[in-house]
Amino acid sequence: MGNSFGQLFRTTSWGESHGGAVGCVVDGCPSLLELCEQDIQKDLDRRRPGQSSIVSQRKESDKVQILSGVFEGKTLGTPICMLVWNEDARPDAYEEMKEKFRPSHADYTYQAKFGHRDWQGGGRTSARETVGRVAAGAVAKKLLRDRAGIEVVGWVSGVGEIHCDVDVDSVTQEQVEASVVRCPNPAISAQMIEAIEAARKAGDSLGGVVRCAIRGCPPGLGAPVFDRLEADLAKGVMSLPASKGFEIGSGYAGTKMTGMEHNDEFRMREGKVRTKTNRSGGVQGGISNGETIYISVAFKPTATVMREQETVNVRYEDTTITGRGRHDPCVLPRAVPMVEAMCALVIADHWLRYEAIRPR
Amino acid sequence: MGNSFGQLFRTTSWGESHGGAVGCVVDGCPSLLELCEQDIQKDLDRRRPGQSSIVSQRKESDKVQILSGVFEGKTLGTPICMLVWNEDARPDAYEEMKEKFRPSHADYTYQAKFGHRDWQGGGRTSARETVGRVAAGAVAKKLLRDRAGIEVVGWVSGVGEIHCDVDVDSVTQEQVEASVVRCPNPAISAQMIEAIEAARKAGDSLGGVVRCAIRGCPPGLGAPVFDRLEADLAKGVMSLPASKGFEIGSGYAGTKMTGMEHNDEFRMREGKVRTKTNRSGGVQGGISNGETIYISVAFKPTATVMREQETVNVRYEDTTITGRGRHDPCVLPRAVPMVEAMCALVIADHWLRYEAIRPR
Amino acid sequence: MGNSFGQLFRTTSWGESHGGAVGCVVDGCPSLLELCEQDIQKDLDRRRPGQSSIVSQRKESDKVQILSGVFEGKTLGTPICMLVWNEDARPDAYEEMKEKFRPSHADYTYQAKFGHRDWQGGGRTSARETVGRVAAGAVAKKLLRDRAGIEVVGWVSGVGEIHCDVDVDSVTQEQVEASVVRCPNPAISAQMIEAIEAARKAGDSLGGVVRCAIRGCPPGLGAPVFDRLEADLAKGVMSLPASKGFEIGSGYAGTKMTGMEHNDEFRMREGKVRTKTNRSGGVQGGISNGETIYISVAFKPTATVMREQETVNVRYEDTTITGRGRHDPCVLPRAVPMVEAMCALVIADHWLRYEAIRPR
Amino acid sequence: MGNSFGQLFRTTSWGESHGGAVGCVVDGCPSLLELCEQDIQKDLDRRRPGQSSIVSQRKESDKVQILSGVFEGKTLGTPICMLVWNEDARPDAYEEMKEKFRPSHADYTYQAKFGHRDWQGGGRTSARETVGRVAAGAVAKKLLRDRAGIEVVGWVSGVGEIHCDVDVDSVTQEQVEASVVRCPNPAISAQMIEAIEAARKAGDSLGGVVRCAIRGCPPGLGAPVFDRLEADLAKGVMSLPASKGFEIGSGYAGTKMTGMEHNDEFRMREGKVRTKTNRSGGVQGGISNGETIYISVAFKPTATVMREQETVNVRYEDTTITGRGRHDPCVLPRAVPMVEAMCALVIADHWLRYEAIRPR
Repeated sequence: MGNSFGQLFRTTSWGESHGGAVGCVVDGCPSLLELCEQDIQKDLDRRRPGQSSIVSQRKESDKVQILSGVFEGKTLGTPICMLVWNEDARPDAYEEMKEKFRPSHADYTYQAKFGHRDWQGGGRTSARETVGRVAAGAVAKKLLRDRAGIEVVGWVSGVGEIHCDVDVDSVTQEQVEASVVRCPNPAISAQMIEAIEAARKAGDSLGGVVRCAIRGCPPGLGAPVFDRLEADLAKGVMSLPASKGFEIGSGYAGTKMTGMEHNDEFRMREGKVRTKTNRSGGVQGGISNGETIYISVAFKPTATVMREQETVNVRYEDTTITGRGRHDPCVLPRAVPMVEAMCALVIADHWLRYEAIRPR
Repeated sequence: MGNSFGQLFRTTSWGESHGGAVGCVVDGCPSLLELCEQDIQKDLDRRRPGQSSIVSQRKESDKVQILSGVFEGKTLGTPICMLVWNEDARPDAYEEMKEKFRPSHADYTYQAKFGHRDWQGGGRTSARETVGRVAAGAVAKKLLRDRAGIEVVGWVSGVGEIHCDVDVDSVTQEQVEASVVRCPNPAISAQMIEAIEAARKAGDSLGGVVRCAIRGCPPGLGAPVFDRLEADLAKGVMSLPASKGFEIGSGYAGTKMTGMEHNDEFRMREGKVRTKTNRSGGVQGGISNGETIYISVAFKPTATVMREQETVNVRYEDTTITGRGRHDPCVLPRAVPMVEAMCALVIADHWLRYEAIRPR
Repeated sequence: MGNSFGQLFRTTSWGESHGGAVGCVVDGCPSLLELCEQDIQKDLDRRRPGQSSIVSQRKESDKVQILSGVFEGKTLGTPICMLVWNEDARPDAYEEMKEKFRPSHADYTYQAKFGHRDWQGGGRTSARETVGRVAAGAVAKKLLRDRAGIEVVGWVSGVGEIHCDVDVDSVTQEQVEASVVRCPNPAISAQMIEAIEAARKAGDSLGGVVRCAIRGCPPGLGAPVFDRLEADLAKGVMSLPASKGFEIGSGYAGTKMTGMEHNDEFRMREGKVRTKTNRSGGVQGGISNGETIYISVAFKPTATVMREQETVNVRYEDTTITGRGRHDPCVLPRAVPMVEAMCALVIADHWLRYEAIRPR
Repeated sequence: MGNSFGQLFRTTSWGESHGGAVGCVVDGCPSLLELCEQDIQKDLDRRRPGQSSIVSQRKESDKVQILSGVFEGKTLGTPICMLVWNEDARPDAYEEMKEKFRPSHADYTYQAKFGHRDWQGGGRTSARETVGRVAAGAVAKKLLRDRAGIEVVGWVSGVGEIHCDVDVDSVTQEQVEASVVRCPNPAISAQMIEAIEAARKAGDSLGGVVRCAIRGCPPGLGAPVFDRLEADLAKGVMSLPASKGFEIGSGYAGTKMTGMEHNDEFRMREGKVRTKTNRSGGVQGGISNGETIYISVAFKPTATVMREQETVNVRYEDTTITGRGRHDPCVLPRAVPMVEAMCALVIADHWLRYEAIRPR
């Protein structure tokens, strides 16, 4: 359980990192949406290892196949199954993981829950599981763009101690993609790359923050109580590996303001109800108000480090472990398409839910 | 849609703030749990307005009635419907809300979504909606305590600029409840009360942070992908009114540490796999590891302030509004049982899900 | 679990037959639908005991209260909680049920499942549980009629050995309601009433068949695979107490025809694709085709009979039991609004689902 | 939407009949269940075209691949994705379907719902879609047999006018599989085969009835209200292509009995509560009582016949169509594993739901 996401636009993810394949099934995508493998591939390429010098150097081409749900270049309204074969299987590289639980990984908790785990490359605990999400997210983005004029753009706003302020209303994906670290500010981007390279050399790792903006969302998406837009966005991104925190709008900083400072006053502008500021982050009472929705996600430093750490083994004895392999010294650059995907899945779902009931 | 929460332990919330009643239906609570109205009432009393001088002075006795699902003092395994009648109806106090959208409230977004809204006291956008959640959470807490030995304790860790460090493994509800602001540190608690009184006198409001610890959770609760424990906890608390941020374990601070600094090394202790530190916050790969689970929730300052603000009216014209009525200058003290409730609902649900499949 | 029904138009039922109340929460009803208690009451009156001489003579006025979700005569788009207080509590009439499991009732299976049961009047196994369904169904019917021009009409087509053929395209609710047994053919209706009276005098009971027509349904409602319209209709009506069988269109009789005899050929008529016959029952491949949808439901004879039967008691000893009380000698007349309600809930749900994704 | 089935044991089906593949994802299967491709293949072989002279002669080897969720011969507790590649693609054989809606098929309703359809072989309306269900059902059967001692056996009890009585408590799969028509009575089986051959020669088709027994089910599975066991069984089998009716226990015949004739009296036998008869079909009040659960499903005659019929084309003009290709003159023999699969999916789901909450 727990491998499906969404009510009307519903994604089911499957696959371990080694052996077989990884993929997803998207159920609920409306028919007649133009869709081809290239629409998916471009986001998978942004998620792929080996895309730049600062990420994992594993070799995975991650070529997606659409197995169902599309006919003559258009969605059928039936489930879209998408698959990527696993290629870079080196089970010997993972022999030690068969015996030992890696600190701050999920090896021990999987063992506790299931009494069984695929120790090759982490199995389903691997970040490779996000292939399915990113593929599904690419479909959601296409739907949002083509049908609703909604755009989802993410970027790296922090790596370790380095922080970058970005205007959520104007930043473009082109600016983001101009940098391998996916920070749209060239000067700060260079600092981040330097920090990541230094961490790699030290056999250590860094964390950071991804922000994401959703623009063009009409007022009325979301739901009042449990399925507030911010609640579903939080669930979506907090289900990503290594995430530790979530903010919408003013976030934690907002807790230090007073009500007079924080409130977003309304004004009519070009015939629309607009807010003068946007500390709400585009959502009020769980429902979009037409302003840019923006969120942030905290990612911890990569758990795999190339240094010796204490741990226990599968016979429940104390031991030590030293990471090896081709890991990301910092997950942030590859986390951007993952965050975008989860945001797109949430918004596509709520957009369909809105279509079902909106006053006509 | 969006008024139910949970898969196996499932709460459906209903009710507007004025007219009729508010309540919930809990479906999926196992049978034979000892339960009476007093078990629910004690948490509702912690949520109730008028409980102390620093919260809203509205008069609501909030007496709960159990209408179904309990027989001879024990749950039947059938839906538990709980109801609280609305008492303090002063529609005239809300006449202005009929005409104008309050800044940073949900009046406008409800109008945009539904084309209709109950303007009396905010209707379902009112924090009064949380009565149902807190009632359901009290059932979940009882189940967790009696059947699984799991305890949920929340407290206020920040009000505006004032912050309080608390040990998540040892803080008790008695310590928390000793203070009307629900901060377990008496000295800092006094400062917080002072700040809230000052905000009230200024006609302004404050935000803050609630933390919550879940103790005694066995390893194995949660799920690997979309229904990670932290994802469901995030969804739960981010669905509370006024919440703007969520953290588990090290949270945003963790993004500034390196992997070597952040990782929780494993050691055997008293025959159990334990971590030497707990930056993971008790959850790894979405699954509990047996350590204390701890989270934080950011709440923005109360949107209703007693000062004039710009806004628009229902005829879409610019105007101004001045808050009045008996509002909380700071929601934090009353938010503690709400956060506990949402955490308890999530953990109860995952505990039942675990029971369904755990290796036996 | 299992007390909610529907994906977008979602009903949660709650309540035992004695003590407290019975009711439901409808989540997902669109806003701005005109709705008042009388819209609900008229269907509850058709379900109510004591409405005629051939049904149970229990005294229950079954007055519904709408507690939420409606404001100024229109739905808010928020959950509609509806409640009926239990009145006719005579626990002493049920003392024997505390001790003994009634044959072909659910006393034993509840005990086996929950280890606890409300033995007063059957608790939640009582047909009184259907109050919530009928109330929710009345909302669904109003929505379907006002927004989609869809009409749901049920009738009794069989009581014991007596059968009545009725034209599914033209029968009206007025014709049905002209008879206390709810069979639109006056002559056959009289025979049915006679048979029921005879069964009552003999302390015995009868079963029968309800049919239901759904008219005005546009082509395109339903879903291809698991949520076929006939699958959801089957689930809906087979969840009613005492139901033992379901048919759509030609049903079991269709199994004895050949393909050439059974197929519904298409013809254009008044610019619409129509079928020349309607053995499909208005549904093809799980999706409505614009013809009248018609189904049938088999109901077993009432399990409570006024004669001695063998059974076992709660100490697991053989014993005997003799029914007493004011039971229906035949559930069919009261089952008509129940079947209509379940059909309306299914169609309302699929209508909203269709609105969410239909090509525009 | 509508391509997933089950709450805890949840199957998502995907795939069109031509191009790409068909398959399913099973989420929620407990870990440590021994499972290999052969466990799946043996049921797929019973569903496969070309398995005998009386079914479709299409060439499909239907070899299943398990892509995820199984490691070292045991389930991981993660999603099990299973895939069968489509082989027998002859799009030209379907050119006419591009233009014309086949009578009593779903071509028209898909067009009405989605505005687009895969006309090759019916796309997702093809019975080929049931590959995924049968594969998932094989996993469910294995789980039920290995963990709960529950057995699911189906057979053909009727073809056209020919009917066969079978003892639901003792019939074995060996007896069923001894006949290509899957009727366990050799004499009646021969008559059925003869009737099917005659229909084929006439270019016509036959319908019939499948029955299915579920044995070894403990008391307590199911749920009181909407998710009654019979409701979920009805939904499951009524979601199969060509199904028109469902019965549990006495079914429609039971409507002609009186209560005294129909009731199942209880008696203690070998320390267990047993019923003397089993007209309830093993379910009372929606919950299993420990007796054999038995159901029946009506299947209409195959819609594709080799004779000319009237229809309309995609330009909404009257025309005629004559079936061609290699179709089943009677779906019944191949429907047996489909019915078993749906029953197994329902029981596996309810067995897990029971494990979650049963009194311990």
